[in-house]
Amino acid sequence: VSRLGPVAPRRSDTSVLRPLGLDEVVLRPGFWGERQRRNRTATLPHVRDRLEAAGNFANLRATAARDTSAAHRNMVFADSDVYKWLEGVAWEQGRDPAPELADDLRTVTHLLRTAQDDDGYLDTAFQLGAPGRRWTDLQFGHELYCLGHLSQAAVADVRATGGTGLLDVARRFADLAVDVFGPGWREGVPGHPEVETALVELYRTTGDERYLELAVLFLDRRGRGRLGPGRFGSAYYQDDRPVREHRAMVGHVVRALYLATGMVDGYAETGDRSLLDAVVAQWDATLGTKTYVTGGQGSRHLDESFGAEYELPPDRAYAETCAGIAAVLLTWRLLLATGLGRYADDMERALFNVVAASTADDGRHFFYVNTLQRRGPGPGRPAWFECACCPPNLLRLLASLQAYVATRDGDGVQLHHYTAATVDTTLPEGRPVGLTIDTDYPAGGRVRVRIDRTGNAPWSLALRVPGWAAAGTLTAGGRTGPAVADERGYAVLTRAWRPGDEVVLDLDLAPRVLWPHPRIDAVRGCAAFARGPVVYCLEQVDQPPGADLADVAVTADVAPKPGHRDGLDVLELDGTVRTPAGWDGRAYATRPPGAPAEREVRLLAVPYHAWANREVGAMRVWVPVRR
Amino acid sequence: VSRLGPVAPRRSDTSVLRPLGLDEVVLRPGFWGERQRRNRTATLPHVRDRLEAAGNFANLRATAARDTSAAHRNMVFADSDVYKWLEGVAWEQGRDPAPELADDLRTVTHLLRTAQDDDGYLDTAFQLGAPGRRWTDLQFGHELYCLGHLSQAAVADVRATGGTGLLDVARRFADLAVDVFGPGWREGVPGHPEVETALVELYRTTGDERYLELAVLFLDRRGRGRLGPGRFGSAYYQDDRPVREHRAMVGHVVRALYLATGMVDGYAETGDRSLLDAVVAQWDATLGTKTYVTGGQGSRHLDESFGAEYELPPDRAYAETCAGIAAVLLTWRLLLATGLGRYADDMERALFNVVAASTADDGRHFFYVNTLQRRGPGPGRPAWFECACCPPNLLRLLASLQAYVATRDGDGVQLHHYTAATVDTTLPEGRPVGLTIDTDYPAGGRVRVRIDRTGNAPWSLALRVPGWAAAGTLTAGGRTGPAVADERGYAVLTRAWRPGDEVVLDLDLAPRVLWPHPRIDAVRGCAAFARGPVVYCLEQVDQPPGADLADVAVTADVAPKPGHRDGLDVLELDGTVRTPAGWDGRAYATRPPGAPAEREVRLLAVPYHAWANREVGAMRVWVPVRR
Repeated sequence: VSRLGPVAPRRSDTSVLRPLGLDEVVLRPGFWGERQRRNRTATLPHVRDRLEAAGNFANLRATAARDTSAAHRNMVFADSDVYKWLEGVAWEQGRDPAPELADDLRTVTHLLRTAQDDDGYLDTAFQLGAPGRRWTDLQFGHELYCLGHLSQAAVADVRATGGTGLLDVARRFADLAVDVFGPGWREGVPGHPEVETALVELYRTTGDERYLELAVLFLDRRGRGRLGPGRFGSAYYQDDRPVREHRAMVGHVVRALYLATGMVDGYAETGDRSLLDAVVAQWDATLGTKTYVTGGQGSRHLDESFGAEYELPPDRAYAETCAGIAAVLLTWRLLLATGLGRYADDMERALFNVVAASTADDGRHFFYVNTLQRRGPGPGRPAWFECACCPPNLLRLLASLQAYVATRDGDGVQLHHYTAATVDTTLPEGRPVGLTIDTDYPAGGRVRVRIDRTGNAPWSLALRVPGWAAAGTLTAGGRTGPAVADERGYAVLTRAWRPGDEVVLDLDLAPRVLWPHPRIDAVRGCAAFARGPVVYCLEQVDQPPGADLADVAVTADVAPKPGHRDGLDVLELDGTVRTPAGWDGRAYATRPPGAPAEREVRLLAVPYHAWANREVGAMRVWVPVRR
Repeated sequence: VSRLGPVAPRRSDTSVLRPLGLDEVVLRPGFWGERQRRNRTATLPHVRDRLEAAGNFANLRATAARDTSAAHRNMVFADSDVYKWLEGVAWEQGRDPAPELADDLRTVTHLLRTAQDDDGYLDTAFQLGAPGRRWTDLQFGHELYCLGHLSQAAVADVRATGGTGLLDVARRFADLAVDVFGPGWREGVPGHPEVETALVELYRTTGDERYLELAVLFLDRRGRGRLGPGRFGSAYYQDDRPVREHRAMVGHVVRALYLATGMVDGYAETGDRSLLDAVVAQWDATLGTKTYVTGGQGSRHLDESFGAEYELPPDRAYAETCAGIAAVLLTWRLLLATGLGRYADDMERALFNVVAASTADDGRHFFYVNTLQRRGPGPGRPAWFECACCPPNLLRLLASLQAYVATRDGDGVQLHHYTAATVDTTLPEGRPVGLTIDTDYPAGGRVRVRIDRTGNAPWSLALRVPGWAAAGTLTAGGRTGPAVADERGYAVLTRAWRPGDEVVLDLDLAPRVLWPHPRIDAVRGCAAFARGPVVYCLEQVDQPPGADLADVAVTADVAPKPGHRDGLDVLELDGTVRTPAGWDGRAYATRPPGAPAEREVRLLAVPYHAWANREVGAMRVWVPVRR
């Protein structure tokens, strides 16, 4: 029996697809395989060092030592960053064990057990920083949020390593939460959703239905103004209306997405279809009106929120890294529940253009905010943050990324994300399937799948045909035809396979020009560029002399030409530099400005995920179109 | 001898123009006269009630009673809102005395004297809320900011009513500040500039040079990172570089503008031209790159700051009301120092399109943020704010607004702002000048000036020819000619006037189409509309059925036609409604969207300052131009 990965539904009747086991997919060198390796070698120790330096471990040690003189350091949710790191350590220990990871798991589990109060309570922000004030600030106290991340780390440890020490700690805290907030007790809801999805996973791991019940209770209670208006209003924490009644998502983006994640998990275990239906509709509306072309979400810095519909300023894009991660977690659940490839498309966009963009080439610097426009030189990716939610969140996602690549169902295997990998799983009735996937995607559009292991009975190989792909071909058994997607978005081949059989999917990676909905005021008259799933951007460093990014435009019939430079896939664009003339320092003029001096130039775009790895200067995803 | 108004330079060699006395100008019914009256009858009592309800007075009473059990209520700078109200009361008591205003002045002065510590310290946020922690938080503690507003209230009281009780309180606190921060003592600077301009005024009122010295010291010390990076970086409080070395203004807008105000005041009393030169250059650059078409400033909600150059999103405009007030205070000082009408133009724009726009018709509701675009229904002007800086700031400005209308110099009188008023002043050598100004400006462009009182010697009447006015005529002595501005921007008539003489200025109020600099990404392809100094906007309530403001455009040759509706001056615009077609809920498309279904409509624009007084729905200042 293979080990479960993140998101492992118990019920089989509520999900179209089943996740593969944690060890059933291995990423090989390629876009994501290399990032998973860098995550292990660079990000993982970096996060550990930074948590040490920032005092997150010190909080736990002081609490464990019952040192009442110690002050709590760092944000109120500092413990959760330790838990996300710990979750990453657990996944890595399962994926590629090492003594120092085992040590970390053992040591920190012991530390947590010692820091935990006798009744199960564990939150150093309150134990150290505000003793006697437990559960007094559900809005911003983040105790249930911390319980959620603790539970997810514990679940990861059980699934990846079989260790149960952390699970004991998490259950004791979760049991306390059941006592405090369970049916008939305090009608509280957490200010920052996260515990809902975590409690469902805790239920999946333990079989204890009280956890599922509490998760559903938190969902059902929400949206009745119990949290009060707070500084930003009830919508900030999705407490303005019941979870099933929202249209597009509102408020703090990460809160909204984690909440939706919990809703899909709640559906998966209760079968309450209204939860899934609500999320499907909300996600649709959010994609159509509140999502950047990169897949990033959140256009307001002040409250880290979705803005109004069509409020998508590129320069003030917030598009938090954690929101991108949350979108991946949500769309994966939607994909499992529905089997629809469109959710894998969304997931892919967020992976390539938010998750990948957030992290520097060295794996030790991170964007918290993933802007779509910079007007000049500025700070690049910092090594750490006062509010350090993003780096350990990236860590745990990349450490388990192989679990998000493929699925199975009764008929066969589905490949959702194309990256060099091997797949080794077993279909119902013990039918073995072994695959090797070779591809340099997204640099190239060719995906070669070799059948390494198979029984004699026919089974189906489903290959996602991305929504962005205008055309593709499929070659199998010596014959080539168009890659035609079924109603779910997959090209499906059902055969009695033989070891050594090969299927080749060729996706058309011709560059695409992207046009914004006319209601998106902030990028009116502009175009963006993509190739495959990768959105491109212009960085000042790549442009010809004199081509200030403030003044460039592309021609209306721009036909981006793919090329290579400095190890990057690039796009060449026919453009012009338009030097504003006759403005004399004014911002507004009373007659239509005269034709600017215009000069033709060849502009160069690079993948957005690669930006700010050389110089950090002006950058723009959206480029004005010359008319 | 007439009573001084706000901003009364002692030196005469540093200012081209001299302000008139507080009682030398009387506003009559008209745009501003009516607003000044409403300010007295509605805003003044409203602010008093709200300060009572919010606990601002309670803080003072508890401090006066040495009630150590009382908690400080409200923001750390709560006292300053009382001082701004008190300043407004003093100006009103000087303008139009009433027993209840005299009572308020007497009672609150006594309260402040009682609340003041023996050594002169007075700040209830620390006396009540953080005893023993005086001057420990210069970044955000606002003690010197409160001293500044206390001093301005005291100066107003002296000038308007001759009362010195409040001045005694202010001087004792200011003397303490001199002891703490004076030359050779603590090298501190205030996190929020304001005390600089106030100390100069305190010096002007008392003749005590230590106040001027401290003001200059605070200016000179600034910009060396003494405040630390704080949450938003040193630039947030203009502490990133010395005050003379900034290019365009940076950081928190109100801080930046108050600082500049203090710099011009510092120049006016020290003659240090480098201070004036720096502000002139900074203001120029700020107007050209960081100012909304309304004159509003500040494009970031998070830190209430100027954004980057050309970062001027209409939907997320911050354009704080207090920033508009500060711009008025700054440009008035620049006008006095230089005599250049262009600063009166800037001042006029901020007055009509920020100050006037901030306040509801009832004088009891206020915008804190003056956005240039709303996408749908939403909250209108609130009656009060947790951070309530704006309403009492409006109060004190409007209560003294007559002081900002005209000036004199050795040659005559200059009229800067056109509103129904009388002017009664005395030129050097005792030459009397009395004028009556009749106009319904900005509804009409005709300004009639009658000479009521004059000696026999010739003197000059200078009438500002606004920079926006393409044409104008001047009629005097039965002859009409073009209103030609001199190098300072004024049409100047020098005559031996006779009582009864009349001068008529006719300004061309033909509607204007305004075009944005091509670097202002957020409004690319859009136009705005103005008539005279008034910027217009489209409100959903005025548009024909089906003309959703999300989808309207004006034609490229749009020629706005002035008209009237519901008591408002309006502009009719030829436009279209373009219903986006074929988007199917998507935000981005891979081919240029097809021509939308388009329908011709007559759009209606109203003065921006009048918006949100009927329904509060969608609104936009910038309208896409159909191409």
